[in-house]
Amino acid sequence: MKAVIYTPNAANTDAWVGRMRALLPDWSINALLEETDPDAVQYAVVWKPQTGAMAQMKNLKAVVSIGAGIDHVLADPELPKHLPIIRTVGEDLTQFMREYVALHVLRHHRDRPQQAAAEARAEWSTVEVPPATRRKVGIMGLGNLGAAAAKTLAGLGFQTLGWTRTRREIDGVTCYAGAGEFDEFLAQSEILVNLLPLTDHTAGILSADLFAKLPKGACLINAARGQHLIEDDLLAALESGQIAQATLDVFTVEPLPEEHPFWAHPAITVTPHIASRIDAETGSRIIAANLAEYERSGAVADLADAKRGY
Amino acid sequence: MKAVIYTPNAANTDAWVGRMRALLPDWSINALLEETDPDAVQYAVVWKPQTGAMAQMKNLKAVVSIGAGIDHVLADPELPKHLPIIRTVGEDLTQFMREYVALHVLRHHRDRPQQAAAEARAEWSTVEVPPATRRKVGIMGLGNLGAAAAKTLAGLGFQTLGWTRTRREIDGVTCYAGAGEFDEFLAQSEILVNLLPLTDHTAGILSADLFAKLPKGACLINAARGQHLIEDDLLAALESGQIAQATLDVFTVEPLPEEHPFWAHPAITVTPHIASRIDAETGSRIIAANLAEYERSGAVADLADAKRGY
Ligand SMILES: NC(=O)c1ccc[n+]([C@@H]2O[C@H](COP(=O)([O-])OP(=O)(O)OC[C@H]3O[C@@H](n4cnc5c(N)ncnc54)[C@H](OP(=O)(O)O)[C@@H]3O)[C@@H](O)[C@H]2O)c1
Ligand SMILES: NC(=O)c1ccc[n+]([C@@H]2O[C@H](COP(=O)([O-])OP(=O)(O)OC[C@H]3O[C@@H](n4cnc5c(N)ncnc54)[C@H](OP(=O)(O)O)[C@@H]3O)[C@@H](O)[C@H]2O)c1
Repeated sequence: MKAVIYTPNAANTDAWVGRMRALLPDWSINALLEETDPDAVQYAVVWKPQTGAMAQMKNLKAVVSIGAGIDHVLADPELPKHLPIIRTVGEDLTQFMREYVALHVLRHHRDRPQQAAAEARAEWSTVEVPPATRRKVGIMGLGNLGAAAAKTLAGLGFQTLGWTRTRREIDGVTCYAGAGEFDEFLAQSEILVNLLPLTDHTAGILSADLFAKLPKGACLINAARGQHLIEDDLLAALESGQIAQATLDVFTVEPLPEEHPFWAHPAITVTPHIASRIDAETGSRIIAANLAEYERSGAVADLADAKRGY
Repeated sequence: MKAVIYTPNAANTDAWVGRMRALLPDWSINALLEETDPDAVQYAVVWKPQTGAMAQMKNLKAVVSIGAGIDHVLADPELPKHLPIIRTVGEDLTQFMREYVALHVLRHHRDRPQQAAAEARAEWSTVEVPPATRRKVGIMGLGNLGAAAAKTLAGLGFQTLGWTRTRREIDGVTCYAGAGEFDEFLAQSEILVNLLPLTDHTAGILSADLFAKLPKGACLINAARGQHLIEDDLLAALESGQIAQATLDVFTVEPLPEEHPFWAHPAITVTPHIASRIDAETGSRIIAANLAEYERSGAVADLADAKRGY
């Protein structure tokens, strides 16, 4: 079998080639940009591939996303529509995300930003907050990551709500589904966490319209994709006090440009797309196993649905 | 029955008197400082009582601590030795503490201090950390609060260790007991959380000697009592890098004086004794129930052991 690898960073790509060769010694594995015979390639393992790259490989059996999202693959308008897309998920990815969500929900719940500001003034002043058992947190998206985050928050004692396309059932989580139940979900979410995939239906969902439906002074955590958020709408909602605080891990342009207003905004916490990751070693093992399994059986558990967009 | 109430703040005391009168309408309830007939008093409900106050009441049946710790009661050298001491604990107290411990363990685990410093410089830079499943957190004290914190950390995925006087068994927590197993416990604790009561055996336990036994670069969280910590030893351990970061909620002198070096120390997070609390309404209900039950049966679940010191 022949596979090619692409990431936007050449040194990183070479490291991936090395790891995949070690894990699949019987396969032929090259950097995509160094492949001289595109028609011989059966699998492309990619992160943010260039437009048209996959269309050149006429005998491709599947594309592997080096990550949980497939939006960066679907962003290529020339991508052959029939191509199966395998996403890369695993225990560490889920673990890191539930830590991130727990940390930042707790930060907002206990009002760390205001507490830290008082600390910087050497001021001994208490911010009174209710216990988590009287705090409602809403999670948009209960997939691999959202469901794990929801269970974690419920375990911490939060009143946890979730919202999805199709109805889900999770112990300790009040589940809402579809457009018809969205407003009821939003009206209760004192802290809102976005873990939706980026699709045509979800792009720009974090908008003035949505913010207006939250309880006044709600907090927002976006750990999914920058394109979910209308940046100017957030700035306006913070200005009006409709949103009190936001923590953002993802941005339309990454790295977030130095002059971007989010960096210095007192009510915004910026983290540099670190909510979750699969370390390269674990990721390459998962991808090698998925490639071998797909080649053997024509199926894997982590197959995305290109039509649905995630 | 007759009960008196003392807190260091007169207005606060009056509010407690009002609440307790409403909850125990058949009892006679006064502020301790306004009681003219000490010999008629059967119960004293106190926070940081003055030396000698209890010794004056010859017919006292029990002292109630407005809080989980009884160190502030035992601090009175004239306290009659035989007096039963009832402590005040409850769901909210446990809930708040497990939130605080989860939040600050996660902050250290994910290196929020370094991440926030990079953010302040508008710098997009990743700090790589292992998942919690490869991070060891040690909790000193597995009582009401420590056990709940330990279970919460285990639920978040941390490798959780606990240390107590007598052996405990908690699912998902590796338990150590007594002086003989202390060093083995410390040697593994990358993040150390103190939830011991303040007693003759535990005062000053967070010392240079203990810090030297932790893994190099460990983090410390003290949410129990200021007197557990030798402040100069912590400053020296931070200076040498033996301790990387500390979060302190309690201090020898509270409020922490404005000129205290902890406030501005870049590696110390100061919180103003907010880890946990029982709100006055809940607390007064718990205390009223304990008083009524003790008067009826001569026993309550939350009886402390004055000899043991907690
Ligand atoms: N910041 C980071 O470090 C980081 C790391 C990894 C991933 N991510 C992001 O996290 C996202 C989620 O990952 P995942 O693995 O949990 O995704 P997933 O397993 O595909 O789950 C997606 C969830 O979103 C729901 N959903 C999709 N479209 C919807 C719509 N139009 N309305 C309502 N609900 C909708 C789905 O509903 P159904 O249950 O009904 O299908 C499902 O519950 C990824 O797509 C990626 O963008 C971020
Ligand atoms: N910062 C805040 O907001 C706040 C709020 C409330 C309380 N606190 C502090 O938290 C402390 C703990 O409260 P709690 O209700 O969990 O106490 P607790 O139920 O009395 O439990 C004390 C624990 O410490 C252990 N212990 C006591 N002496 C020890 C020793 N010499 N060596 C080893 N282990 C020892 C006990 O061991 P055994 O299990 O063997 O008895 C027990 O597990 C309180 O005393 C108070 O100081 C702080």
